[in-house]
Amino acid sequence: MAGSSYAVDINKVVDGRSAQRHDEVAVEEPLEIRLAYSTPDGRATRSISITMRTPGNDPELAAGFLFSESIIHAHSDIAAIETCGPPAPDSGNHNVVRVELGANVDVDLGRLQRHFYTTSSCGVCGKTSLDALRVMGVEPQTGNTIAFPRGALTGVPDKLRAAQETFEKTGGLHAAAAFDVEGQLIITREDVGRHNAVDKVIGALLLEDRLPANDLGLMVSGRASFELMQKALVAGMPLLAAVSAPSSLAVQLAREFDVTLVGFLRGNDFNIYAGELRIGA
Amino acid sequence: MAGSSYAVDINKVVDGRSAQRHDEVAVEEPLEIRLAYSTPDGRATRSISITMRTPGNDPELAAGFLFSESIIHAHSDIAAIETCGPPAPDSGNHNVVRVELGANVDVDLGRLQRHFYTTSSCGVCGKTSLDALRVMGVEPQTGNTIAFPRGALTGVPDKLRAAQETFEKTGGLHAAAAFDVEGQLIITREDVGRHNAVDKVIGALLLEDRLPANDLGLMVSGRASFELMQKALVAGMPLLAAVSAPSSLAVQLAREFDVTLVGFLRGNDFNIYAGELRIGA
Repeated sequence: MAGSSYAVDINKVVDGRSAQRHDEVAVEEPLEIRLAYSTPDGRATRSISITMRTPGNDPELAAGFLFSESIIHAHSDIAAIETCGPPAPDSGNHNVVRVELGANVDVDLGRLQRHFYTTSSCGVCGKTSLDALRVMGVEPQTGNTIAFPRGALTGVPDKLRAAQETFEKTGGLHAAAAFDVEGQLIITREDVGRHNAVDKVIGALLLEDRLPANDLGLMVSGRASFELMQKALVAGMPLLAAVSAPSSLAVQLAREFDVTLVGFLRGNDFNIYAGELRIGA
Repeated sequence: MAGSSYAVDINKVVDGRSAQRHDEVAVEEPLEIRLAYSTPDGRATRSISITMRTPGNDPELAAGFLFSESIIHAHSDIAAIETCGPPAPDSGNHNVVRVELGANVDVDLGRLQRHFYTTSSCGVCGKTSLDALRVMGVEPQTGNTIAFPRGALTGVPDKLRAAQETFEKTGGLHAAAAFDVEGQLIITREDVGRHNAVDKVIGALLLEDRLPANDLGLMVSGRASFELMQKALVAGMPLLAAVSAPSSLAVQLAREFDVTLVGFLRGNDFNIYAGELRIGA
């Protein structure tokens, strides 16, 4: 099970007839992210997240998580990333990633708990969620006049599907990709978790010093939620495209921060929910 | 936006031609769950979770979350549940649920942080995730000999789709349902979040004093992850059926705790990943 798919024997029922079959399912295992950082009293190490993920690209996942949650703000905040711990007994995977921050990096771990709390005296709502991003200093894409031609955009889902190796075997993985104005995939990642697939893409961009990615769009294989829109925005990406539907709050966030939001991108057709000026002829 | 869908004006591109259209998207708003409980020093109130959810059935969502995360263990642990806070300015929704526990209820909030930590000195893995459930006292379904006839099972997805009002409008919601051995839906709930839809179902069962639901199956509209399998297990449900693929850890959990796991339930066909004895002819 060191790979991203796992062989199981199943009972397959087709038209009422049942038969034993070999099958492959997507691997899901917990990953613990440990952060080593400076405090007024010296260095500290803390476990800050456990996420259920598909093994592979774990350092990218950790880096992307820290960046898109605004715990770190630049590649240079990271002094080292290593997978650690002994191999897990059942899979051989190393399920801990240790991220060592630079000595002078200020870390606000309260952010992990706080998230939406900035103006929540009267309870949280869509507005407080948007306000929280403003407080975090996230920049609108208002001045970004890049345009993605329709033909480039409509080609992305097929390329993503072609690149999705494990999905073909298991039917069980989400995919995310960063793509350019010609519709070429720059980075593609898969995971059982939607957020993890996006964090892996953003982490890869961070580690390659490609952030902010003002010239790239983000494609996701499922729906466009507030949190995925937020991750694209923090990474400076001017466009989020999804195979399925967006949520109300994703639409509101896209409009408020001038990001282009495309949904139901299938075949030659799609819906533009925000930022249509970035969709070229 | 007080309902579960939200009207937006979009730009619809079909075969290269673009037109303005009215559309509906699924509402996503944050819900804060506040818990009031006894401590050695008196009563305390703490915000324990903020989840992005589709408004509606919020008390059920809160109750189901607390139960399936093993913060509470019975309906009688709850003294009162109320939605509170003023209506959110942009939607009119009340986005806080306050759960008042009985005076004698022991609460271990550390569990929320701990989850997988029980045996994690060497790092987390699939095995530690399963061990954690054992430590929580979750019972295997080994003695449960209930059987769901194939025909009853294959009828569930269509009934679920028929009951999914908002999905029809928005294409953007997950659904979950509890169903009986005749394939009748007992409770159906929708949400932008997979976990929330399941928590609403389990919360409704809890508040109706129907837990443990040893005679009901759980149907989900998407994939079967470890966490959804865990929620079914904590609710005492002997079968989880999913329209899409299960993950490796969901399969391992089902086999370890003798729960029936069905995937790719579409038309007359499905795969049985564990517990085939509970699928009748």
